[in-house]
Amino acid sequence: MIALETLSTNKAHGGVQGVYSHASAATGTPMTFSVFVPDHAPGARLPVLWYLSGLTCTHANVTEKGEYRAACAEQGIIFVAPDTSPRGDDVADDEAYDFGKGAGFYVNATQEPWAAHFQMRRYIEDELPALVAQHFPVDMARQGITGHSMGGHGALTIALRNPGRFRSVSAFAPIVSPLNCPWGEKALTGYIGPDRAAWREYDACALIDDGARLPDLLVDQGTADGFLAEQLRTELLEQAVARAGMPSTIRLQHGYDHSYYFISTFMADHVAWHGERLKG
Amino acid sequence: MIALETLSTNKAHGGVQGVYSHASAATGTPMTFSVFVPDHAPGARLPVLWYLSGLTCTHANVTEKGEYRAACAEQGIIFVAPDTSPRGDDVADDEAYDFGKGAGFYVNATQEPWAAHFQMRRYIEDELPALVAQHFPVDMARQGITGHSMGGHGALTIALRNPGRFRSVSAFAPIVSPLNCPWGEKALTGYIGPDRAAWREYDACALIDDGARLPDLLVDQGTADGFLAEQLRTELLEQAVARAGMPSTIRLQHGYDHSYYFISTFMADHVAWHGERLKG
Repeated sequence: MIALETLSTNKAHGGVQGVYSHASAATGTPMTFSVFVPDHAPGARLPVLWYLSGLTCTHANVTEKGEYRAACAEQGIIFVAPDTSPRGDDVADDEAYDFGKGAGFYVNATQEPWAAHFQMRRYIEDELPALVAQHFPVDMARQGITGHSMGGHGALTIALRNPGRFRSVSAFAPIVSPLNCPWGEKALTGYIGPDRAAWREYDACALIDDGARLPDLLVDQGTADGFLAEQLRTELLEQAVARAGMPSTIRLQHGYDHSYYFISTFMADHVAWHGERLKG
Repeated sequence: MIALETLSTNKAHGGVQGVYSHASAATGTPMTFSVFVPDHAPGARLPVLWYLSGLTCTHANVTEKGEYRAACAEQGIIFVAPDTSPRGDDVADDEAYDFGKGAGFYVNATQEPWAAHFQMRRYIEDELPALVAQHFPVDMARQGITGHSMGGHGALTIALRNPGRFRSVSAFAPIVSPLNCPWGEKALTGYIGPDRAAWREYDACALIDDGARLPDLLVDQGTADGFLAEQLRTELLEQAVARAGMPSTIRLQHGYDHSYYFISTFMADHVAWHGERLKG
C-alpha cells in the first residue's frame, strides 16, 4: 500500500473533509490533495467525483470556497481535489502565474527543465486514482470528473483520452482549446515543445475532431468572465461538439465572472448532474 | 450620505456579493465589511442578517467559507459581515491572537491604549446599521443577528442589550460568559479595566441573569470543539436560560470542531431559522 500522510480532518456536512500528502512517483515530489467522504453505511463504496483546479490554485481553493460538501453529502459522492502542479524548492518554476508551479496544465512535460517533475497527466490519470482506490471507500466503476478553467481543460482532455472511465464529465469555464489561446500556446510550447501536432492530445476540441467522444457533457461559462473572449473561447467547443454530433449542455450564465463565486453558485447543479449519472 | 467605497462585487447565487470600505467615526479608522444582496424585485426591501466573526477573522473568512449565499438567496435575506476590530498602523495591538487587532470583542474600550480605536460596540450597534440602511435595500424592521465564537458573544450581548431590535438571534459556538473564561477575562480586563461589575453588559449569561431576554435563541456547538470546556462553556448559557425560563434551542453537534467546516455545515439551518422569523 502506498503510504499516505493525513494533514487534517474536519467533520463537515455529516462526513469528513480530509487533506492528505504522499510521495509521488509521477512527479518525484510530495503531493497534497483533499478528499471529502460523506457519511455512509459501513462497507459501502461510493462514486467519486474528481475536481481539477485552475491556474494558481492548490487543493485548498475549492476545498474552502467550492461549496460542494452539502451536495456531495446529499448525493453520496466522494469529492477529490488534487493540486495543479508539483511543488518544492527543486521544482522548476517561472515568474508568470500561468506557467510553472500552479500551472501544470495536466500534461506530461517532455521539455527541459520541466520534464523532471511536471508529469501531471500521469499523476492524475494513473497514480492518484490508484492511491485513492487503496485508501478511500470509492467505487472506481462510478467515476465522474469536472474542473475549472485550466482544470476544466484537464477534465475534458482526460475524459476524452480515457473512453469508458468516466460516467459523467462537466466543467466550469474550461480552456477548451490550448491550440487556440495564449495560455495554451505558452504552456504547451514550454512543456511539450513547438510541434503542434503533439498538442492535440491536450486539446479538447482537437480530440473531438480526431474522433474522441464523451457520453454527455455539462459546461457552465459566465458571460462576465474576463478570460472568455481570448483564453476560454467556449464557442470553439460548441462548434466541435456540433460538428461531432456529441450530446452536450453548454450554458452561458449571465453576469458571472471567473471566480469561485461563479463556481460555488453552480457547484450543486454539477454535483447533482454527476449524481444522476453515477447512481447504481 | 456617508461615503462608501466598493472594493469588489461578484455575482453569486443570483445576487451580488460585495466588499466595501468606509471611514468609521466610531473607530477612527477605515473599516471593511461584506454584504450579500440576493436577487430581488425592484424597490423591494429585504430583511438583514448580521454575522459577527470570531477571533483572528476579518469579513473575508465567512464571505469565502461560510456557505451562506445559497440559503440567503433562497430566503431573500441580505447578509452583512463586518470586521472584528479596527485595523491600521496607528491602531494599538498585542502579539497575542486573542487581544488587540482581530479581537475587538464588540466592546467600547475605556482603557488606554485601546480606547482611541477599539469602539466596536458603537460601530456595530450604531454606525454600521445606519450606513447599511443608507446604501442597501434593507428593511431595518426585520433584522436578525448571528455570529461565531467571539462573534457569537457579540451577537448575543448586542441582542440582549437592544430588546426589540432583532427578531431572531442565533450563534455558532459562542463565548457565552467572558466573566468565566480566560479569553473574556483577558480581553475585558484589557479593554474595560478590572472592575468586573462593568463587564456584565458584555456577558450574555450576566445580562440574562440581570433580566435581559431574547424572544428565542438557536445555538449550535460542536462536541469536538477544543475551546468548549475552557472558553466557550455552553453549559453556562444552558443554565442561564433555564434559570430565566427563556425559550432557546441549544444543540450539541457530535464530532464537530470550531472551524468553518462546522459553521458552513449548519449555516443553511441558521439562515432558514432566521428566515422563518424575518418573514412578512
